[in-house]
Amino acid sequence: MTALTREDVTSMILSAKRQAGLTWEGIAEAIGMSPVWTHSAAMGMNAMPEDKAKAITETLGLPQEAALVLQESPTKIWSQTVPTDPCIYRLYEIVGVYGPTIKALIHEKFGDGIMSAIDFDMSVTRVENPKGDRVKIEMSGKYLGYNAW
Amino acid sequence: MTALTREDVTSMILSAKRQAGLTWEGIAEAIGMSPVWTHSAAMGMNAMPEDKAKAITETLGLPQEAALVLQESPTKIWSQTVPTDPCIYRLYEIVGVYGPTIKALIHEKFGDGIMSAIDFDMSVTRVENPKGDRVKIEMSGKYLGYNAW
Amino acid sequence: MTALTREDVTSMILSAKRQAGLTWEGIAEAIGMSPVWTHSAAMGMNAMPEDKAKAITETLGLPQEAALVLQESPTKIWSQTVPTDPCIYRLYEIVGVYGPTIKALIHEKFGDGIMSAIDFDMSVTRVENPKGDRVKIEMSGKYLGYNAW
Amino acid sequence: MTALTREDVTSMILSAKRQAGLTWEGIAEAIGMSPVWTHSAAMGMNAMPEDKAKAITETLGLPQEAALVLQESPTKIWSQTVPTDPCIYRLYEIVGVYGPTIKALIHEKFGDGIMSAIDFDMSVTRVENPKGDRVKIEMSGKYLGYNAW
Amino acid sequence: MTALTREDVTSMILSAKRQAGLTWEGIAEAIGMSPVWTHSAAMGMNAMPEDKAKAITETLGLPQEAALVLQESPTKIWSQTVPTDPCIYRLYEIVGVYGPTIKALIHEKFGDGIMSAIDFDMSVTRVENPKGDRVKIEMSGKYLGYNAW
Amino acid sequence: MTALTREDVTSMILSAKRQAGLTWEGIAEAIGMSPVWTHSAAMGMNAMPEDKAKAITETLGLPQEAALVLQESPTKIWSQTVPTDPCIYRLYEIVGVYGPTIKALIHEKFGDGIMSAIDFDMSVTRVENPKGDRVKIEMSGKYLGYNAW
Amino acid sequence: MTALTREDVTSMILSAKRQAGLTWEGIAEAIGMSPVWTHSAAMGMNAMPEDKAKAITETLGLPQEAALVLQESPTKIWSQTVPTDPCIYRLYEIVGVYGPTIKALIHEKFGDGIMSAIDFDMSVTRVENPKGDRVKIEMSGKYLGYNAW
Amino acid sequence: MTALTREDVTSMILSAKRQAGLTWEGIAEAIGMSPVWTHSAAMGMNAMPEDKAKAITETLGLPQEAALVLQESPTKIWSQTVPTDPCIYRLYEIVGVYGPTIKALIHEKFGDGIMSAIDFDMSVTRVENPKGDRVKIEMSGKYLGYNAW
Amino acid sequence: MTALTREDVTSMILSAKRQAGLTWEGIAEAIGMSPVWTHSAAMGMNAMPEDKAKAITETLGLPQEAALVLQESPTKIWSQTVPTDPCIYRLYEIVGVYGPTIKALIHEKFGDGIMSAIDFDMSVTRVENPKGDRVKIEMSGKYLGYNAW
Amino acid sequence: MTALTREDVTSMILSAKRQAGLTWEGIAEAIGMSPVWTHSAAMGMNAMPEDKAKAITETLGLPQEAALVLQESPTKIWSQTVPTDPCIYRLYEIVGVYGPTIKALIHEKFGDGIMSAIDFDMSVTRVENPKGDRVKIEMSGKYLGYNAW
Repeated sequence: MTALTREDVTSMILSAKRQAGLTWEGIAEAIGMSPVWTHSAAMGMNAMPEDKAKAITETLGLPQEAALVLQESPTKIWSQTVPTDPCIYRLYEIVGVYGPTIKALIHEKFGDGIMSAIDFDMSVTRVENPKGDRVKIEMSGKYLGYNAW
Repeated sequence: MTALTREDVTSMILSAKRQAGLTWEGIAEAIGMSPVWTHSAAMGMNAMPEDKAKAITETLGLPQEAALVLQESPTKIWSQTVPTDPCIYRLYEIVGVYGPTIKALIHEKFGDGIMSAIDFDMSVTRVENPKGDRVKIEMSGKYLGYNAW
Repeated sequence: MTALTREDVTSMILSAKRQAGLTWEGIAEAIGMSPVWTHSAAMGMNAMPEDKAKAITETLGLPQEAALVLQESPTKIWSQTVPTDPCIYRLYEIVGVYGPTIKALIHEKFGDGIMSAIDFDMSVTRVENPKGDRVKIEMSGKYLGYNAW
Repeated sequence: MTALTREDVTSMILSAKRQAGLTWEGIAEAIGMSPVWTHSAAMGMNAMPEDKAKAITETLGLPQEAALVLQESPTKIWSQTVPTDPCIYRLYEIVGVYGPTIKALIHEKFGDGIMSAIDFDMSVTRVENPKGDRVKIEMSGKYLGYNAW
Repeated sequence: MTALTREDVTSMILSAKRQAGLTWEGIAEAIGMSPVWTHSAAMGMNAMPEDKAKAITETLGLPQEAALVLQESPTKIWSQTVPTDPCIYRLYEIVGVYGPTIKALIHEKFGDGIMSAIDFDMSVTRVENPKGDRVKIEMSGKYLGYNAW
Repeated sequence: MTALTREDVTSMILSAKRQAGLTWEGIAEAIGMSPVWTHSAAMGMNAMPEDKAKAITETLGLPQEAALVLQESPTKIWSQTVPTDPCIYRLYEIVGVYGPTIKALIHEKFGDGIMSAIDFDMSVTRVENPKGDRVKIEMSGKYLGYNAW
Repeated sequence: MTALTREDVTSMILSAKRQAGLTWEGIAEAIGMSPVWTHSAAMGMNAMPEDKAKAITETLGLPQEAALVLQESPTKIWSQTVPTDPCIYRLYEIVGVYGPTIKALIHEKFGDGIMSAIDFDMSVTRVENPKGDRVKIEMSGKYLGYNAW
Repeated sequence: MTALTREDVTSMILSAKRQAGLTWEGIAEAIGMSPVWTHSAAMGMNAMPEDKAKAITETLGLPQEAALVLQESPTKIWSQTVPTDPCIYRLYEIVGVYGPTIKALIHEKFGDGIMSAIDFDMSVTRVENPKGDRVKIEMSGKYLGYNAW
Repeated sequence: MTALTREDVTSMILSAKRQAGLTWEGIAEAIGMSPVWTHSAAMGMNAMPEDKAKAITETLGLPQEAALVLQESPTKIWSQTVPTDPCIYRLYEIVGVYGPTIKALIHEKFGDGIMSAIDFDMSVTRVENPKGDRVKIEMSGKYLGYNAW
Repeated sequence: MTALTREDVTSMILSAKRQAGLTWEGIAEAIGMSPVWTHSAAMGMNAMPEDKAKAITETLGLPQEAALVLQESPTKIWSQTVPTDPCIYRLYEIVGVYGPTIKALIHEKFGDGIMSAIDFDMSVTRVENPKGDRVKIEMSGKYLGYNAW
């Protein structure tokens, strides 16, 4: 008998979501977390605390072992250095075009350091606009200043 | 006699800014634009409309030819497929970790499409926080739905 | 019981098309769409609206679940950065040779911006010619001007 | 004394064009060729026949040696396997998304073969549209069928 | 029931060839084609006309469906950008060392253009030589001149 | 005082050839060697024996030091793993498509081994043809069998 | 008049160090910082606080402008994805071999998170050993736990 | 009957560890080795001496054949040239930023040579700190001086 | 019924060797060849002459079909451009560090040419040394001089 | 006044060697070292001890500062991951083909470890042979066994 893998649990979640006709927003609300974090944890890009892991497996009717897997520290892997999907590529392009600008402004506002991608959160919202609705992405990460020793 | 290049103008701007002790925020205010856009246009990642090109050359005391160069459509080039600077790499990492999540939520909120990186704007702000101040990045891009024909 | 994947549905379409002796032009006509869009949606490079997804599954005698899969937003992936197939490589070569030219002419005719690859359509036709028939490819995409803010 | 290089001549053309306030369409008309071909030959992506090389050097007031250089067979080089400029990247993306579709339709309409990128021509035009003007790109290349021997 | 793939048919051909103790030269003679073309079509690098596809399946005792697969337009894929097998690498090396020379001589003898790799044929022969026999490779491709328009 | 480099000598040869209106065929004839070898040695892809190095410098009126440089063993470098120039790319494509075929036929005619790219010669000729003249490339390399010990 | 660049200042430091016969340890002691940090800041991999920038320019007799450059936030760039220098490659190899182990032990001791490379310090020391002296590298970075929101 | 592979044994170890609720520290203590070495040997990045291989298979209840596999010299492979997992990437970044510094200090303290990654050991510990606990990594490798002959 | 592949035969050899407790040296002696050649042929990096193929299959008790497979000309493939295993990487490093030196000395001792990797043999031996035993690798390849024609 | 760089010293050595008509073997003999080590140190791939650095600068008549540069620890860089020069490529090919074999035999003769590329020496000699002279390369490196702790 083989143990459940992360990939198995991700498949189970996607399959249960489809059958139950749920949305990520709905699942996120059911477990009391944000949609961004909920989706990324379901995809194996974040580990779940015990109570959230149990909540999602109960919400979706998954086996108990799945809750254990969801609490493990995942190895985050993406295989395309440059993503090809147009929706994801546009984000990569923004980093290429505006990355040096963000760095310069962080330096101006904070000093020599970075925005953490670990102590970090994000939201995606829809903003109505008469010229065409807009996608709004808000990221917030702790400023970390370089150490001198 | 050789014509001014984009690289020449970027150097002039950086040099004048240093000598005058200005900030990007200050230059942006002087020309009536946002700091993100102002920096990226100065770096050759965006073209300036005529009035803004004139305003920045006047503000910084650059030659008139510089204003012409700043209005040209730049060829946007970044040479590192994966950026090495830690501040910029963290942004790349966010795309790798959360890119599929952003795609899934755009699909859920809008349908099959993307956030434009062209009809797009962004801001970087400092948010005070007792556990350590945070960098806030807000992006807004027009939703573009895929065509079916 | 495992759910149908995009790859399963693509295989079903190719298999049914072969058995029924159909052409892409024929299938496209049957569902009232263009051959380019129909083929790309069948390959998992575009999502189908509900009515078209139902039309193609009925035309080809596929199971109902296939229609659901065809409506999902696909993650567009191509694994060869430089395509090796000679027919596709020639298109890549055209981008390499004429890409800067197309950019310069868009700039001259419209201003600083791009041709959208999302709000986009294309056709492929055969043009008779005494020196040898020619392939004609017509692309049309919405002009998107860069934002200044 | 060193000979003129292709890069020298390209610089001369760009510089003279700027000073004379000309457009690519204007230069093309002056030498009786299309704007796409004229720009690509000026950039060193096509060789000019003798009369056209002389016409462009006269139009722009370049030295006679430049006309010789423009007639040489250029070595076509692009240094970015995946172009970063957004305007050119969208064309690359179209090849990735629709390349297999174009191949399938060429096969259906002609047989096993390709569209030539050598016996080839192209145009870029602006099409007015109430929802936003569109860029139209038309390519035409001779069909070449694979040999069997 | 799954359809035969190209890979299945290639395996069948290799297996039947081994069991029957045939050579590529022998198979080529049996179907009235050259050994180079016959091998490459068997490997999925060329499509067969109907009569040749039938001839090879009869010669090797393959099922009728195989003849249909052999007539399809294959997507030509090689996965190693730089081949590692020494016999194939030497050919790659020849392109690296002598490619610019071949280009210069084509230009000198024909004008600005290329040797087609589509309207193309090749042979491999053994030439006796007292200092050690030699491999002779002869390639012939139609000259294609660049278009000006 | 700096010594002449290979790049210097290549430039001198190209410049003298242009000024004298010579062809590669003409230069090759003047030094009693083939055009392919002559061009590749001039480009720094082969070393010249003393008499040929002297002959070419006399033919083109180059300084004596150039003859020394032409006799040195060059380090053969090509910077594009996949060549972009269409004329050279077609040769790369032929290796990708027909490489395994050439290997199989060498194996069938000689045994386990390769065609040498060192004990090697090549010619490029123009073959008249009513359907369009053809480029003929003939390569000949010594067969080298793998050692077993 | 052109401004000093980071590269200029690094060259000045290396040159002054050689002429004065100093060691990194000596320079570090003179400015009251560690040798690791001092060398990396001199190489442009860390920004110096004002007092340290002044101290090093005084110690080495550099111009005042150099102290300004040393305080700027550097863009950290390394051009070899896989370093070739054997001394640096061994460190890369250690990351390849022991990276997953370090991750597993951080997870076991702290939870789901990382060791910061920003709030970070390091030392290199020589440890005497009868079987051959050893290099000891000690790294210390703040633990950062992933956020859930 | 197929033999056990390294991957099989790694899976067995991970599965037994999970079922027994053990930690790497606990397993390491049980076999009398360090946690770093124990984890890396379990992952196939180090070979075990016979007694340790037997000890771990007994501790975890694995079949005897597993002990044989653990003693074999593994081929150490990592597939990502640049690791994407943030925890491992930070280590890669440290090599990029501080690699040249470590090299310079080894040179200053020892002479021209390297720190061995073979005669090497490492530990990972948790250091309490009121500003947030820290990860401490200590590496020790034999100094190897370059040979001159 | 499927035919044996090279991979199957390599697995059979490794499995039989393990069960019989043989060494490569022992197997090599049994078939009257060197250990280097024997191992590489067993791994699919060299073809075996008929008698040696039969000898090894008899020595290890493999099926007769295996002897046929071992006589086929293998396609030599290695998937890591830069090998990660430390033992193999060190060899790669030697090529990087000493490759240009070997080239210079071959040129000095022989003229413009190379050491063949086809008409080639090699041995690996252990040399006792009081400061630590040494690995000795001896390579011998036929000198091949470049052709001029 | 700028300091001498490694590249300057390498150029001086090559230039003086050419003018004096020396060989590497002759220079090596003059300084009492081997030709392999002498050439690699001259190319910047090894550091020279003080006496050898002085000996070579005296032998070739270089300035005293050159002797200082030759004693510095060089950063060893090669820019081609896969070397293109045929003479060097053959060595790379040998690592690809025989690397796993060398690893297996080291393991069989010594245990789990590697051949050092640091405590290492090498020679290149010409071996007469009636079938064609052969290049003999002998490498010797200290065996380093993996540590267990």
